[in-house]
Amino acid sequence: MTPFKLTDELLQEIEQLIEDKKNLKLEAMLEEVHYADVAEIIDELDEEQAVYLIKLLDSDKTSDVLTELDEDVREAILNNLSAKEIAEELEELDTDDAADIVGELPEDIVQEVISEIEDKEHAKDIVELLRYDENSAGGLMAKELVKVRESWNVLTCVKEMRAQAENVTRVHSIYVVDDNDKLKGRLSLKDLLTTSTKSHISDIYIPKVDSVNVNEDPEEVAKIMSKYDLEAIPVVDEIGRLVGRITIDDIVDVIKEEAEKDYQLAAGISQDVEADDSIWDLTRARLPWLFLGLVGGVGAAAIMGGFEDMIRDHAILFFFTPLIAAMAGNVGVQSSAIIVQGLANDDLKGSVGNRLIKEMLLASLNGVILAAVLLLFTWAYKGEFLTALALSVSLIVVIIVAGLIGTFIPLFLDKRGIDPAIATGPFITTSNDIFGILIYFWIAKQVLGI
Amino acid sequence: MTPFKLTDELLQEIEQLIEDKKNLKLEAMLEEVHYADVAEIIDELDEEQAVYLIKLLDSDKTSDVLTELDEDVREAILNNLSAKEIAEELEELDTDDAADIVGELPEDIVQEVISEIEDKEHAKDIVELLRYDENSAGGLMAKELVKVRESWNVLTCVKEMRAQAENVTRVHSIYVVDDNDKLKGRLSLKDLLTTSTKSHISDIYIPKVDSVNVNEDPEEVAKIMSKYDLEAIPVVDEIGRLVGRITIDDIVDVIKEEAEKDYQLAAGISQDVEADDSIWDLTRARLPWLFLGLVGGVGAAAIMGGFEDMIRDHAILFFFTPLIAAMAGNVGVQSSAIIVQGLANDDLKGSVGNRLIKEMLLASLNGVILAAVLLLFTWAYKGEFLTALALSVSLIVVIIVAGLIGTFIPLFLDKRGIDPAIATGPFITTSNDIFGILIYFWIAKQVLGI
Repeated sequence: MTPFKLTDELLQEIEQLIEDKKNLKLEAMLEEVHYADVAEIIDELDEEQAVYLIKLLDSDKTSDVLTELDEDVREAILNNLSAKEIAEELEELDTDDAADIVGELPEDIVQEVISEIEDKEHAKDIVELLRYDENSAGGLMAKELVKVRESWNVLTCVKEMRAQAENVTRVHSIYVVDDNDKLKGRLSLKDLLTTSTKSHISDIYIPKVDSVNVNEDPEEVAKIMSKYDLEAIPVVDEIGRLVGRITIDDIVDVIKEEAEKDYQLAAGISQDVEADDSIWDLTRARLPWLFLGLVGGVGAAAIMGGFEDMIRDHAILFFFTPLIAAMAGNVGVQSSAIIVQGLANDDLKGSVGNRLIKEMLLASLNGVILAAVLLLFTWAYKGEFLTALALSVSLIVVIIVAGLIGTFIPLFLDKRGIDPAIATGPFITTSNDIFGILIYFWIAKQVLGI
Repeated sequence: MTPFKLTDELLQEIEQLIEDKKNLKLEAMLEEVHYADVAEIIDELDEEQAVYLIKLLDSDKTSDVLTELDEDVREAILNNLSAKEIAEELEELDTDDAADIVGELPEDIVQEVISEIEDKEHAKDIVELLRYDENSAGGLMAKELVKVRESWNVLTCVKEMRAQAENVTRVHSIYVVDDNDKLKGRLSLKDLLTTSTKSHISDIYIPKVDSVNVNEDPEEVAKIMSKYDLEAIPVVDEIGRLVGRITIDDIVDVIKEEAEKDYQLAAGISQDVEADDSIWDLTRARLPWLFLGLVGGVGAAAIMGGFEDMIRDHAILFFFTPLIAAMAGNVGVQSSAIIVQGLANDDLKGSVGNRLIKEMLLASLNGVILAAVLLLFTWAYKGEFLTALALSVSLIVVIIVAGLIGTFIPLFLDKRGIDPAIATGPFITTSNDIFGILIYFWIAKQVLGI
């Protein structure tokens, strides 16, 4: 399989075909293209072309394409469709994808769109899903699943399952519920393949099944599913009734988004932006952190101003402030990144005190090695041993303090319920810059005896 | 479901039970615990206790626990097991997990372990998997899958499938091959549930199936599977023969590892380390980048030394070098992070030239806003308009240059086949520090007319 690659040539060809209204050729061309790739094409077209192309596709492809589009492109396209047309697309989609789209519609047309959906059961399920917070298991789950009652016999069960499976893209597990819809266990599809059809449900089901509460945090669901290698997990409400199912493909998205968010936070980008977003969006995501850096820089300048009397005899100290600031920043980012990942993977054992002791040893080791190199270099180069010593001693202390701050802040934030990823970015760099420079000049002053 | 949480109390209790050799109580206690959680417990025990506990578990749990352990803990435990005992565990595992474990064994015992495996077919599959590079689709795939020949009738097919499914944890898809084992298409399990059993395979199979080559990069496999929402993908060799299957749970691990690697690179940590690794491992991962920062800092000091004649009349310029360096670093990291993510998600369209123009506009906008704030502040505070102007003009230029470097370097690395993630870390911070300070003093000199 060669993965589809959207080239500039292909895009131009499609734009030309749309221009010339060569519908047959377009249809033939797109028939073999996967909906996720069609979405990629449409994301690149202008609004008019995108609407033209969407209307050309057959309805069950259109609906799948809609789920894969960039949010703003989808919004633009839906604006060009009638409530009835939107309802027809929702009809084709699983309830979770349909609910996501309805959730983005302007409020004044939601009612109309829902009432245009012919399958009333489907409409009811979508409305139910709209109730849940986007950022919860309920916001991720779909209503499509296969469930059987423990009171049934296998014959009823197989008949019911066939009917239910029609609406479910991937079956995974057959959930077993009691007469009050409470989740009791599961039947595995594999067991179904390899077991005689004569048995009774209550005798053959597996009474143990993992599930998550409808209010659970998606990140927690992702951790559970990836730790226990689950491909689907049932979702239950407060009193244990089966209300939906989350599948691994949605969890893959959660994991990727979470990783992207952490990466962006570490890089000092505060919102979920992409390279193709507008300059305005990108500025809003980047400027606040840069402003923080500016304030930090002004703070550092003020500190250095306080040591101005040293500038005549010890100008060299001032030349090394970028080095001190950079080392403080780097060490802080390194130690906080390790803590943030440990927290994300739930594999930090032991107390905060032990963490800090370990980081202190680690930073001391790194600090001494680096300071020794710097000492030899500056001494050989400038010939002023005392200055070189002042510089090196400060470097060791700065690295240790930076490592401790980098270790402590994410642990502290996590304890307070704040996403610790925020600490790896400019926040820690900036505070470490300031502390670093302050410590540096103070120690240099002591060593030089000024 | 309350997720399992390994507390210090629980760990102490288990250690005490091992100490007292209370086997029955331990067995009862661990019976209900998922193997992934048992692995978490064993990771925290010392070697002797770990081996004791592993030998207490029943064999099919032991094997699953082994796959979930930290690599060094697993190594220690396997050292305490005989070749026959290891072979018994491998017998219980899927071929991919078994091959991963065999791949970690000391070379001199591999032969013996393999020959102790009783199921010769299983042993052959494991040996075959050992051939493939760990970092390829072949290194990820398992031999367990359900395949049927297009020449069969449904009756043969169902009989064969039942036998094959015994060895396959999750069936997902039934692959259809011709008499030379070439992948032709698939039968879906859902179709099987909803179709009459009278049909013939060649009439009912779906002739379209996504597959990946055995040499494909795991990251590429992850992209394909997550883009097309696949839960399993067949792997074919160079001439299209079906050789294995990759399932989504392995891909979830690939995605997580990739994200962690990028995050660590961005934070200046060069190897895959965890918070609980030894100080020595952590130092090896962190020190090289810190050393790079040290070299950069010495470079910056040398540059400032070249402008020493300005220090008497314009000391304030030197106070602002940490600010300039920090801004150059932050902007560079931001712009490179956005490019790195765009490359990772394959959603960068258009030419390098356009990217650079966009970043230039973006950086200019941010630069002008920040410089205006800084100008007003330093002018009001110090009253030297010309110095404030020099500082602000340089800040704008430095931000633009830093943005361009941050945009260009990852694009350049990617074109050369190097992982662009390396560019978001200390590499770009350090080079931007140096360029930033150089530009800053040069411009200040022009503006102040020195």
